[in-house]
Amino acid sequence: MPSPLSLDGDRLWSNILSTARIGAHGKTGMNRLALSASDAEVREWFASECRALGCTVEVDDIGNMFSVLPGSKPGLATIAVGSHLDTQPAGGRFDGILGVLAGVEILRALHVSGQMLRHPFAVVNWTNEEGSRFSPAMMGSGVFCGVHDIGSIHALSDKEGLTVGEALDKIGYRGEHIAGYLPMAAYLELHIEQGPVLEADGSKVGIVSGVQGLRWLDVRIRGTEAHAGAFPMTLREDALVSAAKVVLATEAIAHKYPPGVATVGSIHVAPNSRNVVPGEVRLEIDLRHTEESGLAAMEAELVADIARLVPQAELSVVWRKSPVLFNATLRETIQEEAEGLGLSALHMVSGAGHDAAHVAVKVPTAMIFIPSREGLSHNEREYSSPQQCADGANLLLRSVLRIDEILGS
Amino acid sequence: MPSPLSLDGDRLWSNILSTARIGAHGKTGMNRLALSASDAEVREWFASECRALGCTVEVDDIGNMFSVLPGSKPGLATIAVGSHLDTQPAGGRFDGILGVLAGVEILRALHVSGQMLRHPFAVVNWTNEEGSRFSPAMMGSGVFCGVHDIGSIHALSDKEGLTVGEALDKIGYRGEHIAGYLPMAAYLELHIEQGPVLEADGSKVGIVSGVQGLRWLDVRIRGTEAHAGAFPMTLREDALVSAAKVVLATEAIAHKYPPGVATVGSIHVAPNSRNVVPGEVRLEIDLRHTEESGLAAMEAELVADIARLVPQAELSVVWRKSPVLFNATLRETIQEEAEGLGLSALHMVSGAGHDAAHVAVKVPTAMIFIPSREGLSHNEREYSSPQQCADGANLLLRSVLRIDEILGS
Repeated sequence: MPSPLSLDGDRLWSNILSTARIGAHGKTGMNRLALSASDAEVREWFASECRALGCTVEVDDIGNMFSVLPGSKPGLATIAVGSHLDTQPAGGRFDGILGVLAGVEILRALHVSGQMLRHPFAVVNWTNEEGSRFSPAMMGSGVFCGVHDIGSIHALSDKEGLTVGEALDKIGYRGEHIAGYLPMAAYLELHIEQGPVLEADGSKVGIVSGVQGLRWLDVRIRGTEAHAGAFPMTLREDALVSAAKVVLATEAIAHKYPPGVATVGSIHVAPNSRNVVPGEVRLEIDLRHTEESGLAAMEAELVADIARLVPQAELSVVWRKSPVLFNATLRETIQEEAEGLGLSALHMVSGAGHDAAHVAVKVPTAMIFIPSREGLSHNEREYSSPQQCADGANLLLRSVLRIDEILGS
Repeated sequence: MPSPLSLDGDRLWSNILSTARIGAHGKTGMNRLALSASDAEVREWFASECRALGCTVEVDDIGNMFSVLPGSKPGLATIAVGSHLDTQPAGGRFDGILGVLAGVEILRALHVSGQMLRHPFAVVNWTNEEGSRFSPAMMGSGVFCGVHDIGSIHALSDKEGLTVGEALDKIGYRGEHIAGYLPMAAYLELHIEQGPVLEADGSKVGIVSGVQGLRWLDVRIRGTEAHAGAFPMTLREDALVSAAKVVLATEAIAHKYPPGVATVGSIHVAPNSRNVVPGEVRLEIDLRHTEESGLAAMEAELVADIARLVPQAELSVVWRKSPVLFNATLRETIQEEAEGLGLSALHMVSGAGHDAAHVAVKVPTAMIFIPSREGLSHNEREYSSPQQCADGANLLLRSVLRIDEILGS
């Protein structure tokens, strides 16, 4: 048996730092919006690096990039790894980027060793995971998996009125392949956790069992705008007082349905002036749970609570997404490889959405997390150490090698 | 005894409607900011109308206008009525304006009848009552009464960087008189209620016993900004959940100390995005009470409640203003004249601040309210009927005539 492959953690770290200059923002932050000039620049870097490592670089009609190495056994579907190179407008250097650059180091390890997988192997850069410039988020993987129709997606505009299709043309990334063209045998995504669970637990890596489902609710509460001095308390309908009850009810629901989480992240008050009783408040609520049943119970109970506490509230559910469960075989394989590398692993659910959640709809999929310092993400202080990045990338490599054996046999 | 004077309600109404074209905003709203071009235009109208009715028009160094009729008995101080002609940026046609235009109709009634008061009589237009362009509000009456220093007030700037002094020069209203130059024997102000109390009670007029005192508090709550999906409830510090507790505690305080009122009118959340746990919230609180003791108790108890509910909250009191009590003799006189006119009257405290609250510091002062439809004010839907305006103005006239007798004797 040959000595097992491992990848170059220093090279990975150095590529994270050097590519972070493309679209740098603030001291250690990133502003590399999807299909922007800096996104184009990092795409060129990625394509050129992969070609130098023996890949063909294929692009589909939503701009997803596939750097593909051929396999030794004919007729097998591709094993893919990847994530995204776009960032939030004030994002960090690791979110998404780690998963793509770790794939590049796998290509390099294979290239240097001369070892050939039995399956074709691809490193994927999904278009517009963040959704900051063009909504919805996870756009490229959504089109790839048939969740979104390519025509409708091409017609969506950014704030300046430029469409996705025009933005793809502008940077030369409306590819010739039809999204979804590449048959995949398995998809693995390495990502930072973006939460504090691994750091608190002390585990080196997370093996992600799935992605939470979610409900987005909008609440509009109308009261009566009034002079804060001249209106007696008994004659008031203060929309912010009603909204405060909804905020507390939302928090209480989450505590009642663990491990559910519930957040009122956004509030808009009109007229929002100190000496005017608020006349109208709009709230945006985010509910998540690992189980569809838990999510449905949270939604139903919150709707009932709001109707009881604030009868005049107008409530609408603007997005429902069911939980996603990742492939059990892939998760077990990752677990065994983590043990082989001596990396303590925590099985956990992803709180955030990821491209992998779309891909899982049509391809056996799994994810690996590494810790995020203080759980920070979408923030220039986002950080994972060189060792943590190398640990995650090596576990990804070893899992790919093992899956190549299992699935190809 | 000659038949008692009364004023022309139709003329008053017609002047309210015609001067509302100066700085009209929307359908029936007003945008006549202090010292703006439209404020200058309405000032010219006011001066010219008063001169035609026999007045000299005097202006002080903060732009307050005094249209003065001489009295028949030498050596007496002036009896003044008035209010303000400036409006909120999206205000109504009655707030302030009614009190000045009612004064003009008193001048007209005296002029037409040939009757001369024993005291000099003045109609005052106070500069910048609203405080929308230049803060603080009630600026002209504040300088007149020595609450503010003229030099500091002249140096204050609007958002464009133009100072009060420059704005006065620009429209030609930095007058030659030193603010406070005019000795007053009494000051009466007619105003719309700006609240729903009179309408709910059914009384024709309000006799204002004083103006509530107030406390303005700022609260800053820092939590931990975090991913709404990836952060478990147990590890969160959600600043909006803490803020909701403060909002409910603020409302509860008011109910505990009637007739106190308490409002959180303004809230700012960062980053205010649906899927991010709020990291910081700032609240602006307005507490009011008719009694200084009630106000102090509200403040002390709210501070203690916030410290208990949200220990990390940073709290500061940005403004303390004591309640003002109006002159008892003047209030009794108004009460008697209301009875004489057959107008049902409610004795009430003003929730809103008024120029009269400043003037009361140095001159015997009282106020008359008329009902505001639905209690609306600072709103283009602000409305009082022609009859309500005429009732208030006639009560003002009769009170002036009576006070002229009482004080001059």
